[in-house]
Amino acid sequence: FESKLPNLGTSIFSQMTALANQFEAINLSQGFPEFDAPELLKKQLNHYVLEGVNQYSPSSGVPRLQQQIAQLAKRKYAAEIDAAQQVTVTSGATEALFVAIQALVREGDEVIVFDPAYDSYQPAIELAGGKSVHIALQAPSYAIDWQTVTAAINSKTRAIIINTPHNPSGKTLKQHDINALKALVIKHDLYLISDEVYEHITFDQQPHLSVLRDNELFARSFVISSFGKTFHSTGWKMGYCIAPAALAVEFRKIHQYVTFSSFTPAQHALADMLEQQGEHVDELSEFYQQKRDVLSNALKDSRFTILPSEGTYFLLLDYSDVSDLNDVEFCQWLVEQAGVAAIPLSVFYQRPSNDKVIRLCFAKNDATLLQAAEILCQL
Amino acid sequence: FESKLPNLGTSIFSQMTALANQFEAINLSQGFPEFDAPELLKKQLNHYVLEGVNQYSPSSGVPRLQQQIAQLAKRKYAAEIDAAQQVTVTSGATEALFVAIQALVREGDEVIVFDPAYDSYQPAIELAGGKSVHIALQAPSYAIDWQTVTAAINSKTRAIIINTPHNPSGKTLKQHDINALKALVIKHDLYLISDEVYEHITFDQQPHLSVLRDNELFARSFVISSFGKTFHSTGWKMGYCIAPAALAVEFRKIHQYVTFSSFTPAQHALADMLEQQGEHVDELSEFYQQKRDVLSNALKDSRFTILPSEGTYFLLLDYSDVSDLNDVEFCQWLVEQAGVAAIPLSVFYQRPSNDKVIRLCFAKNDATLLQAAEILCQL
Ligand SMILES: CSCCC(=O)C(=O)O
Ligand SMILES: CSCCC(=O)C(=O)O
Repeated sequence: FESKLPNLGTSIFSQMTALANQFEAINLSQGFPEFDAPELLKKQLNHYVLEGVNQYSPSSGVPRLQQQIAQLAKRKYAAEIDAAQQVTVTSGATEALFVAIQALVREGDEVIVFDPAYDSYQPAIELAGGKSVHIALQAPSYAIDWQTVTAAINSKTRAIIINTPHNPSGKTLKQHDINALKALVIKHDLYLISDEVYEHITFDQQPHLSVLRDNELFARSFVISSFGKTFHSTGWKMGYCIAPAALAVEFRKIHQYVTFSSFTPAQHALADMLEQQGEHVDELSEFYQQKRDVLSNALKDSRFTILPSEGTYFLLLDYSDVSDLNDVEFCQWLVEQAGVAAIPLSVFYQRPSNDKVIRLCFAKNDATLLQAAEILCQL
Repeated sequence: FESKLPNLGTSIFSQMTALANQFEAINLSQGFPEFDAPELLKKQLNHYVLEGVNQYSPSSGVPRLQQQIAQLAKRKYAAEIDAAQQVTVTSGATEALFVAIQALVREGDEVIVFDPAYDSYQPAIELAGGKSVHIALQAPSYAIDWQTVTAAINSKTRAIIINTPHNPSGKTLKQHDINALKALVIKHDLYLISDEVYEHITFDQQPHLSVLRDNELFARSFVISSFGKTFHSTGWKMGYCIAPAALAVEFRKIHQYVTFSSFTPAQHALADMLEQQGEHVDELSEFYQQKRDVLSNALKDSRFTILPSEGTYFLLLDYSDVSDLNDVEFCQWLVEQAGVAAIPLSVFYQRPSNDKVIRLCFAKNDATLLQAAEILCQL
């Protein structure tokens, strides 16, 4: 059987979590929280399950949840979203990304992605018959040089994928980035997929510059988010896509044949949660900033160099002073011999990367972070 | 924005359910049960949610659930399935169908489907760059003429999709069908996607002839099923795909980038359900046969001709003696004027169909079925 994706293996996140379990290591690799979903959310889910709200929801989502999503976008970004026409609930942001890419990308199209890039972009583009064009960002700033982006655009370019706050670097796009992006998208008649799954996790008082804040840019965009990151419930696989109506129509055509709809009781529970405890969303940045600082402070005296994290629940470490191994080997050694699982940065790059950088997830209890830091400080 | 699927609208199931709600009609259109999921299943789901089992499951599924699925296949079909390597849990059978098609179908490939066909097959094939080749089956027998199938096979043919028990006709494949299918698949080096989502709903003591019963055929197959149909929980969107290891590897590569994984607490709850109340599965055929008979008997004196239903929770009616409208117009009239929502059969055909046939879903309480029948008897 000839594979359609011959170069693809099992996702690095699955691999590292399996290794972490095998070696009973502290798992700071795959990004998921060690803390549980809010009590209200769990209670409401159980309520709807018991009440018998267990059949198909509308393919685009439960209307109450669509409305809550639109209201959140209004409150946070002053965006005027038509809930019924523009919001589509999906089985996680992964599905939303996949569907948006299928809706946009045609045979031969090129899509610009920034490396380090989330691992699902490229295979989704290839399955649509397109080609991902990778622009490599450099440690430690991971800044985008918009001249390089301009040079990469040609008549085949269909779309750009951005991710802010950025997994794995923790970098957030600034207003000048959004301005440059917008100019390019409009000038070259491109579309934008904006992966904003960490939208509610930004540090040091920086606001999240959602594409939803800009009407002109939004008019050509699929904006994607995730409840798993926001409500500590990655295993519920609930996400969504907000797009202008004309794009949402195309998104929905495909979504209805990819999953049709998502877990109904969770949709109602999320609507209740957003309605009754909206403050959870607003407290998330502070919550995770404290986590970032616990880990950073505990690593201050280590031989790792800590890279800046402006958002997400990830922190990058440069281990040049710790080991000569390449990052894949180093992570292998780290999980087997030191008992800490991390993600090597090179797996997020198409071209070989010699950077000695690893990613740690700090969505963990302080005790776990301190325990991992103690190990890392001894290296 | 030029659509990649210009001829595609909103699924007929979404449309008819929306109309049923608008006109407050009895909804026998979209296939979902009026009864609730079993108490144990709901209780266990709630248990895992409260316990905090709310983060990502492994991409291929929770091992306990994979094992229960393999054991069910062994108990019912004497199939020897390697749970860890061959079973992949998906976000509904819709996702499983979509992923299997993406794994198999390459640019230019042809896939044979039998009309009336489930609406997701064709768009999934087209998104993969393939072409669906439609073989129309005729009312009232909907039998497959394997000579016609042989004639449709050429060097581009990559796969055949079967669906048994068949939605919408209620037809089940017989041993001679399976034999003919197997001979063709092997002779022409094809693959098979076997949509068996109604596998536990067969009537009149007929066993379900799963592809899992036949090692040689299974060796070239993706076998797909759905917990929504089996456990009255269509809104949970839980399904799975069983495939030989080499095919499962390709399936999983794509699944991990389509949804990554499915609702974790439901996976554990389904494992408990299969383990502790396996008899639910065995009682389903009798349960639905009684429903079929309630509806059929209540329609005996109507002017509709009842077509045979050997499985699924659907019943076809020929309305030639009731109306001259075409089936789309008749269903429109039926929901607006008579207060019963049904599905017109022609929407399952690629080529125009003049059959005067509609589909009713009988996964409803007896009172609902009798109420609908009373209306239909007056036409
Ligand atoms: C879907 S598994 C990956 C989780 C994640 O977003 C990450 O670790 O980067
Ligand atoms: C996913 S909505 C369609 C439900 C169904 O299987 C049917 O009505 O045929």
